[in-house]
Amino acid sequence: MDKIGFVGLGIMGKPMAKNLLKAGFDVIFYARRPEVIKEAEEAGGKAVGSSKAVAEATDIIVTCVTADPEVREVILGENGVLEGASEGDLIVDMSTISPLTIREIAETVALKGVHVMDAPISGGEPGAIAGTLTIMAGGDKADFERCQGIFKAMGKEENLFNVGPIGVGQTVKIVNQYMAAINISAIVEGFTIGIQAGADPEVMHEVISVSTANSFGLQQRGKDYILKDFFEPGFMLDLMKKDVGIGVDLAKALNVPAPLGGPTYQLFAIASRLGAGKLDFSAVCKAMEHLSGIKIGKAG
Amino acid sequence: MDKIGFVGLGIMGKPMAKNLLKAGFDVIFYARRPEVIKEAEEAGGKAVGSSKAVAEATDIIVTCVTADPEVREVILGENGVLEGASEGDLIVDMSTISPLTIREIAETVALKGVHVMDAPISGGEPGAIAGTLTIMAGGDKADFERCQGIFKAMGKEENLFNVGPIGVGQTVKIVNQYMAAINISAIVEGFTIGIQAGADPEVMHEVISVSTANSFGLQQRGKDYILKDFFEPGFMLDLMKKDVGIGVDLAKALNVPAPLGGPTYQLFAIASRLGAGKLDFSAVCKAMEHLSGIKIGKAG
Repeated sequence: MDKIGFVGLGIMGKPMAKNLLKAGFDVIFYARRPEVIKEAEEAGGKAVGSSKAVAEATDIIVTCVTADPEVREVILGENGVLEGASEGDLIVDMSTISPLTIREIAETVALKGVHVMDAPISGGEPGAIAGTLTIMAGGDKADFERCQGIFKAMGKEENLFNVGPIGVGQTVKIVNQYMAAINISAIVEGFTIGIQAGADPEVMHEVISVSTANSFGLQQRGKDYILKDFFEPGFMLDLMKKDVGIGVDLAKALNVPAPLGGPTYQLFAIASRLGAGKLDFSAVCKAMEHLSGIKIGKAG
Repeated sequence: MDKIGFVGLGIMGKPMAKNLLKAGFDVIFYARRPEVIKEAEEAGGKAVGSSKAVAEATDIIVTCVTADPEVREVILGENGVLEGASEGDLIVDMSTISPLTIREIAETVALKGVHVMDAPISGGEPGAIAGTLTIMAGGDKADFERCQGIFKAMGKEENLFNVGPIGVGQTVKIVNQYMAAINISAIVEGFTIGIQAGADPEVMHEVISVSTANSFGLQQRGKDYILKDFFEPGFMLDLMKKDVGIGVDLAKALNVPAPLGGPTYQLFAIASRLGAGKLDFSAVCKAMEHLSGIKIGKAG
């Protein structure tokens, strides 16, 4: 079976690498934390000493790290993937970063004949563990075909999308995050006004759930998170803040007006300053609570 | 069968009054346009010469007009409902207006022993015709019980809600409209950024439909309206602008911060200035297109 390189065995990457192993791939990986190395080796993976060494040993290298600087570092940095890669190799970056960053990286590595596909994911830790992620891949059709086996091992077959050329995977992912962040902020803002005007938040949730403002966010984060004042992630607020920030920066770089993204980002920044960064992103309600003095949820 | 008064046989009110007639109620109504009077009389209704005359002839008077000034006028104005009403009568206002306005009206008419219930509706013209509206009623439980028969004639039995005391019906309705308006604006803003970054709007729609930013708005107004550049209402943009405006004013009156409602209202105001006021509210995309020069939908 093919050898697959893997760099970035974090909350998402570790279960994804394990699913590659389960599907029968040989996984050569680079990780720093000893407990992660131990766990991935016990699952059948083979640790090497650098991202460069991963690339030397494999032709398809998956990277799944936190943000733009980390992706630059593991691909273009010292002892990075590019140093070990050879012509025809394919880097599949599954982090969520700016489409502009991955396009720039793709141009750089192309000078050595190395291909890049941006393939951000959706579905969170549960989806990574279950191997049911949605994958939004940007890049050549041929590279997408080359990834079918590994994508099927990590994602849900009907939710593997080749959404366009390089960078478009990130674009679609960021647009989704951007809209989801505005939606949850709208829920929080609407509830706050409604409460002050005398409405019960549980009743608002019930009625709006069968009305035109219903949303995935209201169903997934309304009742069991915001109304219960319960914010165990889920998807961390600081990561959502990062993603909305990428969207706002992207709009700025492309000179597109973004009237709602700006204030939405500010709400996430306020919530993060209040210490909610490691909570679920629906804890953005803490920003509105702080700004208004009006409490939305009730614990217990 | 009970006699029911009806004032305001517009796009929503006319089919609602007809459904009352179909359910066997005697409907005494006041309307100005001859063709409306003719149609409602042919359906079995009885026209009288003023809102006052409607109230004189009935104990339960439904009002369903455009906005706050019209509700004030038909209830408190010269030859209005209050002049003809007697102690124990119940005014059921099904317009969408500010909760503060209906509370003020309720206080005024209470001096004469007249009750008020605010019972705004959701479901649009199709729901009004089919008799499947959602009704969010604010007011006393006893008054809500008194309205069961007429609500069942106009609405869907499982979607008739007594959401709280007077004004809370409007509150829940306005919060729903406010969130829905922000959601559609988020869709439009996200699509605009995504298109400029190279993504195809059809692909974004497909992927986001199975991701965390999915919403009722995306499903109802994404593919068949915004992407097709088709804006036959549906629900008119100027009415959505009015509703978001009520939400923004309500937040202001209650001293609640409203970071997203403000810019959302501006987008609807811009779209209205561009001549989209009589189109479906999803034509708010015309505001973003005008601001950015980026076209989202393709006709045909």
